[in-house]
Amino acid sequence: RCFHFCKLPGRVMGIRLLRFTSVVIIVLLLVAGALTALLPTIKDDKLPNLRREPKTQSQSALDSFTLIMQTYNRTDLLLKLLNHYQAIPHLHKVIVVWNNIGEKTPEEMWNSLGPHPVPVVFKVQTVNRMRNRLQNFPDLETKAVLMMDDDTLVSAHDLAFAFSVWQQFPEHIVGFVPRKHISTPSGVYSYGSFELQNPGFGNGDQYSMVLIGAAFFHSGYLEDFQQQPEAVYALIDETQNCDDIAMNFLVAKHTGKPSGVFVKPVDMRNLEKDTNSGYSGMWHRAEHLLQRSYCVNKLVNIYDGMPLKYSNIMISQFGFPNYANHKNKM
Amino acid sequence: RCFHFCKLPGRVMGIRLLRFTSVVIIVLLLVAGALTALLPTIKDDKLPNLRREPKTQSQSALDSFTLIMQTYNRTDLLLKLLNHYQAIPHLHKVIVVWNNIGEKTPEEMWNSLGPHPVPVVFKVQTVNRMRNRLQNFPDLETKAVLMMDDDTLVSAHDLAFAFSVWQQFPEHIVGFVPRKHISTPSGVYSYGSFELQNPGFGNGDQYSMVLIGAAFFHSGYLEDFQQQPEAVYALIDETQNCDDIAMNFLVAKHTGKPSGVFVKPVDMRNLEKDTNSGYSGMWHRAEHLLQRSYCVNKLVNIYDGMPLKYSNIMISQFGFPNYANHKNKM
Repeated sequence: RCFHFCKLPGRVMGIRLLRFTSVVIIVLLLVAGALTALLPTIKDDKLPNLRREPKTQSQSALDSFTLIMQTYNRTDLLLKLLNHYQAIPHLHKVIVVWNNIGEKTPEEMWNSLGPHPVPVVFKVQTVNRMRNRLQNFPDLETKAVLMMDDDTLVSAHDLAFAFSVWQQFPEHIVGFVPRKHISTPSGVYSYGSFELQNPGFGNGDQYSMVLIGAAFFHSGYLEDFQQQPEAVYALIDETQNCDDIAMNFLVAKHTGKPSGVFVKPVDMRNLEKDTNSGYSGMWHRAEHLLQRSYCVNKLVNIYDGMPLKYSNIMISQFGFPNYANHKNKM
Repeated sequence: RCFHFCKLPGRVMGIRLLRFTSVVIIVLLLVAGALTALLPTIKDDKLPNLRREPKTQSQSALDSFTLIMQTYNRTDLLLKLLNHYQAIPHLHKVIVVWNNIGEKTPEEMWNSLGPHPVPVVFKVQTVNRMRNRLQNFPDLETKAVLMMDDDTLVSAHDLAFAFSVWQQFPEHIVGFVPRKHISTPSGVYSYGSFELQNPGFGNGDQYSMVLIGAAFFHSGYLEDFQQQPEAVYALIDETQNCDDIAMNFLVAKHTGKPSGVFVKPVDMRNLEKDTNSGYSGMWHRAEHLLQRSYCVNKLVNIYDGMPLKYSNIMISQFGFPNYANHKNKM
């Protein structure tokens, strides 16, 4: 018996109305269902105007790195290099340290030529200082920093490999340019490369620094750099040089081990000659190398000791570019 | 007053006797003293028949290594190689694992051609087993083992460098012969070298094993090897092969990292062809490589998983033999 239903006003009319309503509803549902089946299936390639979420932004802070590139008077090289570096695997963001005081950054032009694979931030500086690139930038979100000079092109293959090496040696400066200091009987140190005599630990050469103008290192070292004695900043400002030597001292002191791990580059190029600016870089100054020896000795005074340690480990990528590059004479 | 003395029989004669005795004694002492002054000063080079205390025996257990070399049917090569290896820097002792069952060791001849830079111990075996070299020899005093096949010559320079690398990576097998496994869609693994396809992690090749026939590793792993499942020993005995693959599995499981670190040799030679015995080594057997693939899969079953990990790190010595061997294109 239908007690509830049947209590509708107008018992006979109620039932008929109910049946009619039910039928209408069912018919409407069927029609709607049929219409749904006719809708086109939504596929990714049918949404061309929506930007794909950039993969790099979902990379964790451990699996990606931030490129910090300081630039002075070589904007043409900077832009060439940015086109190259913006597409390096595992790159999270680029920070351009703009040392062209009073000059507009190319940010407008950069934006007009978007979209770009990663964000690029232009940090306008107030004074043209070599150590501007060693600030503890709030924009830094990754554990790893890749620091490049604005005239140096390193291939993506080299960078991808060196980044993987850094991940295995995160407390070291992992890079492509090895240098060394040597001590002399007088106790005065000298700075140089392979043209200097070997430090004399067995055969072969040794390096005690890896320059930061083409290297990966832990972003924590930028924090540490802010805690150094004033004399270090004064030295770097006085010479407009040696920030990289100071960083190697810092890292060596921190780890008690050789500061750097040298990765032999397959394809690294200096683009200095390619600039229209006529500006060819600090290392061409006559006093450049003498300054660096001077810096080594000053830093030993400031830190009251020589923390740099030697290494002769040279790392290359197994089976690249030549798949039999490890073959021996056997 | 002289009470005790004077109680000697014959009082007057006693005193005269005493004085005379004293004078004689004093004169004798003076003469002896004079004779001592005339003795020649003892210098090292005046004692040609006394062996200098070998420097290696005063080396601490951390700064030296023990060479373990197993030998079968190639005593001529063994003796050639012993002459070379006995003089390697930082070598503490040599252990020769004598697999020539029932045959006398060359110990007598060895001793007759002494002195030698380091002690050499001949361990006579009762059964000719490949895994004899993986015993936990009580003669082992060093933390590091250098294991060499009895047909492999590696230069002193390479060994000295690789030993210094091992000291920086003591939990790894640091050696000169990289190999890899690859997995296939069927889940079956295959063993090989660079002729096999890359495992597909980025560009270049990868290795997942470093063979122990030319490598440094921690002596603790010989202890660990004694604790492995019986099935591992059975596998090695069945194939007379794969002890090195088993060691790589052991090390990878222990560290959770790639088992080996590959050091690219400058001068490594296979002396197989130089033997008079006509015996040319196990790896020439037709089934050798197939056995090794078989072993990889068996070990995965035994250990219930694949512990081997890939690496593409290739280490060379900075500035050796060519002092500019790190130069880049800049």
